[in-house]
Amino acid sequence: MPTINPDRLLTDLRTLRSIGAKERGVVRPAFSAADMEARRWLSQRYAEAGLEPVIDGVGNVLGRSRNSGKALLIGSHSDTQPTGGWLDGALGVIYALEVVRALGADPATRRMAVDAVSFQDEEARFIGCLGSRSLVGALSPDIERDAADRDGVLLESAIRDAGLASVPRVQLDAARYAGFLEAHIEQGPTLEDTHKRIGVVDAIVGLRGIRFVFRGQQNHAGTTMMARRRDAATALYELAHRINQEFPKVAAERSVWTMGRARIEPNATSIVPGYAELDLQFRDASEAPLEAFESVAYRLVEEMNARGGVRIEAIRARAPIAPTRMDPGLQQHIASAAERHAPGKWQRMPSGAFHDAGIVSARIPSAMLFIPSIGGISHDFAEDSRDDDIVLGCQVLADAAASILAG
Amino acid sequence: MPTINPDRLLTDLRTLRSIGAKERGVVRPAFSAADMEARRWLSQRYAEAGLEPVIDGVGNVLGRSRNSGKALLIGSHSDTQPTGGWLDGALGVIYALEVVRALGADPATRRMAVDAVSFQDEEARFIGCLGSRSLVGALSPDIERDAADRDGVLLESAIRDAGLASVPRVQLDAARYAGFLEAHIEQGPTLEDTHKRIGVVDAIVGLRGIRFVFRGQQNHAGTTMMARRRDAATALYELAHRINQEFPKVAAERSVWTMGRARIEPNATSIVPGYAELDLQFRDASEAPLEAFESVAYRLVEEMNARGGVRIEAIRARAPIAPTRMDPGLQQHIASAAERHAPGKWQRMPSGAFHDAGIVSARIPSAMLFIPSIGGISHDFAEDSRDDDIVLGCQVLADAAASILAG
Repeated sequence: MPTINPDRLLTDLRTLRSIGAKERGVVRPAFSAADMEARRWLSQRYAEAGLEPVIDGVGNVLGRSRNSGKALLIGSHSDTQPTGGWLDGALGVIYALEVVRALGADPATRRMAVDAVSFQDEEARFIGCLGSRSLVGALSPDIERDAADRDGVLLESAIRDAGLASVPRVQLDAARYAGFLEAHIEQGPTLEDTHKRIGVVDAIVGLRGIRFVFRGQQNHAGTTMMARRRDAATALYELAHRINQEFPKVAAERSVWTMGRARIEPNATSIVPGYAELDLQFRDASEAPLEAFESVAYRLVEEMNARGGVRIEAIRARAPIAPTRMDPGLQQHIASAAERHAPGKWQRMPSGAFHDAGIVSARIPSAMLFIPSIGGISHDFAEDSRDDDIVLGCQVLADAAASILAG
Repeated sequence: MPTINPDRLLTDLRTLRSIGAKERGVVRPAFSAADMEARRWLSQRYAEAGLEPVIDGVGNVLGRSRNSGKALLIGSHSDTQPTGGWLDGALGVIYALEVVRALGADPATRRMAVDAVSFQDEEARFIGCLGSRSLVGALSPDIERDAADRDGVLLESAIRDAGLASVPRVQLDAARYAGFLEAHIEQGPTLEDTHKRIGVVDAIVGLRGIRFVFRGQQNHAGTTMMARRRDAATALYELAHRINQEFPKVAAERSVWTMGRARIEPNATSIVPGYAELDLQFRDASEAPLEAFESVAYRLVEEMNARGGVRIEAIRARAPIAPTRMDPGLQQHIASAAERHAPGKWQRMPSGAFHDAGIVSARIPSAMLFIPSIGGISHDFAEDSRDDDIVLGCQVLADAAASILAG
């Protein structure tokens, strides 16, 4: 079995961390200068590891093995949240590099074909999982058109500014691959709470979104009597609270929903707001609760619109994500490797966060491995994992890759 | 009786409108370059009208009559909302100038003492009614300290940048005055709805505010189960909706309340918010409903805090405003003048908006006159009034001033 090099692994992770480092975290959003620098750095590491590297037209970094036979694709993403942690995405990207090197150094595995990848914009500066969507051909001009970040920067401009406007986009050759493996930090407290060191992901939850737009009448907060008002914020507060009251009645055990973004115009203490927006996002590992949530939301909007006053429009988010089962065969390879290196210290679990593996699994068998997040913290500068967990996860992944390609 | 000059009145109003004009509206927030330019322009008009002008240390423009005997103070404010209308404040300021000129031109009234004023920052860029508060001595260092606008500019810096840091602030000599008169656009639809042309204000509603601060725990919207969440936005939506359900039960006929400003951190669709703020403002012409609203709000916060999870803090706004009765004697002078010039076309009414007269009335008898707002619109570029209503209002004010000082 291949043996990974812990020092080399941790050194590369720390070097990648230094590109866009801020305090204990990393600021490396998709297509930023730091993000593109990290991709060029990674491309050089791929080349040193014997892969044929390319940065494609959407910013994906791909390293293709020169070996023949069925290949395994391994990787994650190197872009971060606006105030991101150092391991989210980066862990799985450097794992892939280290697995390539470990397999290449072992006579028993050196002929195996492992391709490495760092996808672009998993963190949805423009479009969540932009890079993996592009690779599998799930990106339509409809989805890309008008895609913009929070500051109004268009995806098209970001691609042009990164010098990628005329670079071709690589398309997945499904026939080449035995499957795709992605390692990631858990981003939740489950492994830590249950004292496990490896999670074998059995499903990735699906996600849908609705943006509610409230159109009322802006007015003076002193001279406009309550009966005359069409207050967009009042309608927003009511709908949001009623969603929070109604959703538990149709929720499954691990369903989650969030209304983390609201916008009120003009957002002034003394002005009755005439316009507001509210984003609702809901997730589950099965379609049924997602359908039920959507029905409840539309029913509440219909009820409120029937009353008159503020007009509410419900707009489905452009890129819903279906719940995805991970490939049972690949899961078994990861589980066996985990049991070998950490007996009794692993478990199967769903992923509450979405990942590129959820996109890639539509085209080729895919599976994921989790390592524990300290305190369950992620999407935060404080995000961290223990060095020995980081090393263990990479060794398990290398074993699993070797056994999959040996099979 | 004195006769005003309609052309001169409308010309001066339009000249003032041109300072900071944008589209059909005016952008002249307190201490901005346009605001200070308007104040210097006004100071010159005061001088031409025979008054002794001064711009004091807080930006108030005062024009003192050289005549002896009891004086009448007349005026309003010349600062505007960030996207303001052309008449809000400006109307009452130019009325005062025209009344001074009309009385000065009539042998029967030329010895009467009328002082004119344009107060600073009525529109609360920093502190609502800053200028009138300063004049009457109702401004404490506690209120001024740390006062800042929406962009974080400190009041202290704005005063310094306007060159007023070492200029003395004028204090009201209450013994000098028979009273204060302020004319203003109604900023609501009441006069238009009832086909009246003059409103004689009998009371100005009081206003209190509470800022609710919600402290929870920021988390990943996919991996954090509902039971573990401490979602600041969820608490905000619940409190806001419950306030909107509970307040009608204790409201008086003309009570109003508004939650026009909310802030959610980090305000991202995929992140459980850890921090939020909500501003509640409520108004009534009597104290009792204000007390009742405050009790309900604090009770709801207590109930929600008792449940645990998100911690809510309720912070009283620094500058509450008590409901104010206008002086009955002064009201009668305005009513008589209104009946003389527009028989049957005037009415008594409360002011739902706050005005400098609400501050000045704490020290000297005060009264207000309203003219109709087209469509009830104000705090908007579209704000307007009919020329004949503008002219009528000024003539009624001049008559009332003459009869008060003759009395």
